[in-house]
Amino acid sequence: MGNVSTAAVTPPVDGRWRSSLRVHTFSIGDTIWMEPERIWLVSRGVVLLNLLHPDGEEVVVGLATPGTAFGLPLTSLMAYQAKALSKTELMLFTLVEVESSPNLTQSLVRGLARRLRQAEGLLGITSHRRVEERLRHLLLLLKQEIGEPHPLGTRYSVRLTHQQLATAIGTSRVTMTRLLGKLRQERWLTYDRDRHVILMNTAES
Amino acid sequence: MGNVSTAAVTPPVDGRWRSSLRVHTFSIGDTIWMEPERIWLVSRGVVLLNLLHPDGEEVVVGLATPGTAFGLPLTSLMAYQAKALSKTELMLFTLVEVESSPNLTQSLVRGLARRLRQAEGLLGITSHRRVEERLRHLLLLLKQEIGEPHPLGTRYSVRLTHQQLATAIGTSRVTMTRLLGKLRQERWLTYDRDRHVILMNTAES
Repeated sequence: MGNVSTAAVTPPVDGRWRSSLRVHTFSIGDTIWMEPERIWLVSRGVVLLNLLHPDGEEVVVGLATPGTAFGLPLTSLMAYQAKALSKTELMLFTLVEVESSPNLTQSLVRGLARRLRQAEGLLGITSHRRVEERLRHLLLLLKQEIGEPHPLGTRYSVRLTHQQLATAIGTSRVTMTRLLGKLRQERWLTYDRDRHVILMNTAES
Repeated sequence: MGNVSTAAVTPPVDGRWRSSLRVHTFSIGDTIWMEPERIWLVSRGVVLLNLLHPDGEEVVVGLATPGTAFGLPLTSLMAYQAKALSKTELMLFTLVEVESSPNLTQSLVRGLARRLRQAEGLLGITSHRRVEERLRHLLLLLKQEIGEPHPLGTRYSVRLTHQQLATAIGTSRVTMTRLLGKLRQERWLTYDRDRHVILMNTAES
């Protein structure tokens, strides 16, 4: 997997699909609505996918980046929520539309393969015993997904809170804050003025 | 998601793809080789997908059932292993072959969507605090994936060891054996003579 930025990518579909009914934009923090039998294709930006726990906690289960898709037909989770982590542009399709267009189907295959790789990566992370190991692996996985070149190393194109990072690896916000402090002291990572993580060039990959 | 059995399904591809170079069969317990740039499409049987940990443990990260695909282009895990859980029939394709055939691409979209739903289901499970809750959710997820009708409820078409179930939810074999004993006493599940799990009709879903 190469790096992706959140800048606009060539939309995976040609012009005739770009009607105003289909294309929607969202701002940072917006919750993205979902419909049965319809999927969203991301053309710009990053979307955070959460599982809502009965206790109110939002557990991060994925990130949808340009070229990938998400939606109710693509999840088995009941309490599923999508939030824009940046300014995003999304296109809404029915499954029938996707399956009737070779162009769309091919985009979707690549986008689903990418999300599957991400989900397996997250499953692999939860199998590490030590929380610190889990965090290092998570940060390297995110580098693949939302990393963009920076003079010091790789900068995340969106900001994730300590709470979000914590739920992605099953730990508490307090532990996350302590561990990130440790990694920062080790000069494994730093932050820019917008509080986006920068993984230093010295971070092993 | 409906139930799938391990009986042969209509292969997702038409006759011209079924050359002897492409179709391979495996027996229970066989390790399935994988090649860079090539994916396996499952036409019959169930394949267990493991992450091999440095400490030698095999951590279950997925099951590939008929109509779904797996292979190195579809994973981000370095130490990835696939094992046949039943007699399986698989077909080997390059990504270029898949993308040049609308028929194959459509099958792959459905198969990838199914695996993505499974992976998100597993990610959701690891977010439950109590091990017993994780196990109940895992057993219900497996019901969707490998369940087939049985007079007492739903029978798993393949046998999973306590160790395999344990690694899928991050617990020990000893704890798994104890919890399965508890669920059996509650008549939530039982076993048939081949030691396949049967989820009783009373198991809430």
